[in-house]
Amino acid sequence: MLHLKCETPRRWLAQVDSDLPSILIDHAHCEKKAAGTALNLIFAYVENIDLCRAMSEIVNEELEHFHMVLDLLARRGIRFRRLTPSSYGRELNDLVRKLEPQRVVDRLLVAGLIEARSCERFHVLAQHVKDAELAEFYGSLFESEARHHTTYTRLAKDFAPESVVMTRLDELASLEAEIITRGEARPRMHS
Amino acid sequence: MLHLKCETPRRWLAQVDSDLPSILIDHAHCEKKAAGTALNLIFAYVENIDLCRAMSEIVNEELEHFHMVLDLLARRGIRFRRLTPSSYGRELNDLVRKLEPQRVVDRLLVAGLIEARSCERFHVLAQHVKDAELAEFYGSLFESEARHHTTYTRLAKDFAPESVVMTRLDELASLEAEIITRGEARPRMHS
Repeated sequence: MLHLKCETPRRWLAQVDSDLPSILIDHAHCEKKAAGTALNLIFAYVENIDLCRAMSEIVNEELEHFHMVLDLLARRGIRFRRLTPSSYGRELNDLVRKLEPQRVVDRLLVAGLIEARSCERFHVLAQHVKDAELAEFYGSLFESEARHHTTYTRLAKDFAPESVVMTRLDELASLEAEIITRGEARPRMHS
Repeated sequence: MLHLKCETPRRWLAQVDSDLPSILIDHAHCEKKAAGTALNLIFAYVENIDLCRAMSEIVNEELEHFHMVLDLLARRGIRFRRLTPSSYGRELNDLVRKLEPQRVVDRLLVAGLIEARSCERFHVLAQHVKDAELAEFYGSLFESEARHHTTYTRLAKDFAPESVVMTRLDELASLEAEIITRGEARPRMHS
């Protein structure tokens, strides 16, 4: 359902254990960036009413999650601060083709894959942490990220035939799996 | 309460009468841009939790208004399309100083003045049009724009003393009045 080509490597769980606060702060930034991505899609494809409606809902939900994470940080006495992002988002966005309609298909599928990976990581995190509040929190976010993945993939089919979209999703998912398997040293939500 | 230095000139009412559809379409774009402005402020000042919360609410409300205007256009058979914007927003944003903390104060006050002018125009429009649906619609949006103006002005006081903020607001409001008095030929929400 999530179209991911690999599971989170165990290496990431070691990062979670070594620096959970950085991962939580990065998560807040990810929610904010996800709202920005959805709003940018409204700006770019404003004549597609179906896209605008779906993206508006996603903007609202991501901002709500952003505040939920800020509240969680506050309850734990973790100061929210700027953080160098992981290169995951940039590397995926570099895969977006420049010409329309390929461009919009890629933008939607990449956004959808990021949602899918977040969904998978939330599940892994909820299972891994020995912390009832965190486990419940990440369990509760799981469903909406899965739904966002589905929304992005569905919208891509407004711009290209289903077979074209699914072939490209398969390609992008393979590249996403390479990036996530390679990983990176900074502990982040997508490291 | 709105800190505006002039009323909408009668010239604008002639534009409303000559090309109401363009003004309605431009209004939809304005709501979308207002959501973008608020989200950009979250990105720029993410460490200010008070600002982030207030901006998230504004993003949600502006997107809701965006869809309300899209629905209004659909009911009237007006096709939503791209439109060259008026120069009003750009001219006001050119007044924003480059260095912090002056920059954030100006960004907030300019955003607040745009809300104030929208509020005033919605009121003028609701009074002017011989159209019960439009009059009710613009009457209903009036209150939230006024509230947004107040929110932006209040937030500016997080970054500079009240007297400094109010002096700058007075300066910017005078410049805004010059821009709006000069006007422009294209019929737009802020022409």
